[in-house]
Amino acid sequence: MTLKNDRFLRALRRQPVDQTPVWMMRQAGRYLPEYRETRKRGKDFMTLCQTPELACEVTLQPLARYPLDAAILFSDILTIPDAMGLGLSFTEGEGPRFQHPVRTHADIKKLAVPDPHDNLRYVMDAVTLIRQELAGSVPLIGFSGSPWTLATYMVEGGTTKNFSRVKGLMFEQPQAMHQLLDTLAQSVIAYLKAQIEAGVQAVMVFDTWGGILTSRDYLEFSLPYMQKIVKGIEGVPVILFTKDGNEWLEEIAATGCDAVGLDWKLPIGSARTRIGDKVALQGNMDPCILYASPERIRQEVADILKSFGQGSGHIFNLGHGIHPQVDPEHVAVFIDAVHELSAPYHG
Amino acid sequence: MTLKNDRFLRALRRQPVDQTPVWMMRQAGRYLPEYRETRKRGKDFMTLCQTPELACEVTLQPLARYPLDAAILFSDILTIPDAMGLGLSFTEGEGPRFQHPVRTHADIKKLAVPDPHDNLRYVMDAVTLIRQELAGSVPLIGFSGSPWTLATYMVEGGTTKNFSRVKGLMFEQPQAMHQLLDTLAQSVIAYLKAQIEAGVQAVMVFDTWGGILTSRDYLEFSLPYMQKIVKGIEGVPVILFTKDGNEWLEEIAATGCDAVGLDWKLPIGSARTRIGDKVALQGNMDPCILYASPERIRQEVADILKSFGQGSGHIFNLGHGIHPQVDPEHVAVFIDAVHELSAPYHG
Repeated sequence: MTLKNDRFLRALRRQPVDQTPVWMMRQAGRYLPEYRETRKRGKDFMTLCQTPELACEVTLQPLARYPLDAAILFSDILTIPDAMGLGLSFTEGEGPRFQHPVRTHADIKKLAVPDPHDNLRYVMDAVTLIRQELAGSVPLIGFSGSPWTLATYMVEGGTTKNFSRVKGLMFEQPQAMHQLLDTLAQSVIAYLKAQIEAGVQAVMVFDTWGGILTSRDYLEFSLPYMQKIVKGIEGVPVILFTKDGNEWLEEIAATGCDAVGLDWKLPIGSARTRIGDKVALQGNMDPCILYASPERIRQEVADILKSFGQGSGHIFNLGHGIHPQVDPEHVAVFIDAVHELSAPYHG
Repeated sequence: MTLKNDRFLRALRRQPVDQTPVWMMRQAGRYLPEYRETRKRGKDFMTLCQTPELACEVTLQPLARYPLDAAILFSDILTIPDAMGLGLSFTEGEGPRFQHPVRTHADIKKLAVPDPHDNLRYVMDAVTLIRQELAGSVPLIGFSGSPWTLATYMVEGGTTKNFSRVKGLMFEQPQAMHQLLDTLAQSVIAYLKAQIEAGVQAVMVFDTWGGILTSRDYLEFSLPYMQKIVKGIEGVPVILFTKDGNEWLEEIAATGCDAVGLDWKLPIGSARTRIGDKVALQGNMDPCILYASPERIRQEVADILKSFGQGSGHIFNLGHGIHPQVDPEHVAVFIDAVHELSAPYHG
């Protein structure tokens, strides 16, 4: 099926576009009143993820409001460890919890790569349904957490401030950690391949916690497993995003990925100078700008477009997920500003 | 009075030393059972800070256990806003809270620079007492939060995940934010000058939240106010530490400070190549290494010493405060390893 709007995919391949494409991390989320309504109908957050009709509904909500250039599957990064039997639940305000965290080498040895068509079938069903509903309007992005990021949650058993358990295991039993990461990389590859078969047209790997590592440990415990994923995926573009990972942009770009996601800390022009001839760049507006006035939002969009400069290879996004308290009207201003103000930089 | 151990001050001036000096951020803290005992005797955390005898007692506790090369005043970075009348309290597990947060330009206009000899006298009394008790054994470090970091707590009213209020104010009313930061810079200068008069022999400015800013905003809203402080302080060395600030090491070093604190993400050898001929470097072991075995801890110390290389100008430290769950025996291994393994790099 030919896409009606293929700006996002063209920018990923650094082919000419008429306007810079834009989407937002967590665009289907709590800042939207209609999301909060649907959420009430699901028992809890995981029910929303596991019910294809509900996941489809919330995936499409931001697209009904805004002229976004891509949809992203509504799901959670922790579906894989849940499918491995760790028993995922979400408590309001406290985040994810695993009933059976992974703490020892023996725990790690017991883990098997989940068959994505079995325990994760609900994700593939959601993808199929969303593709039908999108009817070729814009492409659909699939995603997964990075092996290191999944490992942090699996070992800690939930969110953490200090990462003491996962780093303790990494420092003390590096071989056990490598075994865990290898199992996770295989699982992510199988999972993303199944998403692609079901219809996603690009995939993104979220390395939320790579940025808490020293350079040495990032290059040993996080990046190589993302590289495995890049090599294991065929047929669709791959975006890698390590939050707080600006020190390693060159190494991330060298994995063979198609695009690098950027947080807001670095001017995108500097990132383009460093790696923008090898890959596309996705980012990188500070999500807090959306609390400011429409004028200030437009100014920020203009500054970032100017920083990136002429030509294709930029997918506009926030540098992090949109916050739940943002005014949906401000999002409209943001999305329109990207399209309107980017036209002069193309063609 | 001549110091019995002046390694710390000599390393700050990049003068020859026999061994690399070492101290730890939060070395007087919850990982020590004797600290938890003293803590029980104070009503709460602020009582501990505000009672010179108790503050002195906990300051000296880690020095009784370990051959540390410096003491650091036991206090909190939020004493200044408290002295401004914001009403600081600490709730167990939730961190600091201000009863009267600063939200509007009118709130900001009402703020006055606190006289350090008035509402903050308890800090100076603690300094005098600690100096007496140290009796010239090792130097005493004084400190303050950076203006930007203080502003984040004052505007948010406590700890935050998104920094939406303080960034909202910064984006929407930059002039009001500059006025707040200017008042805070003046307050920090007066506060640190009073600490120096009372006896501290070096000062450190903690910019805990500078690292959440874009480069543009860090260089406008955080760094210039730390530079003001550096220019306003005389007679003792100044250490600047921006957590997650590795992108701006050159700019931090160019403020005229004597040393730059490093978190653990960058190899210290890379930091030395970038700025180590201008300033001393303090850091930068990942605090999570202290969860590993004694052998692993010694290995990490050896790696960091090797990364820094030959000569003076390194003050060994963690890249962040020591965690409350660390085994005090592991700290002993760490401190001893720094002294023992660093000797070959000197003289």
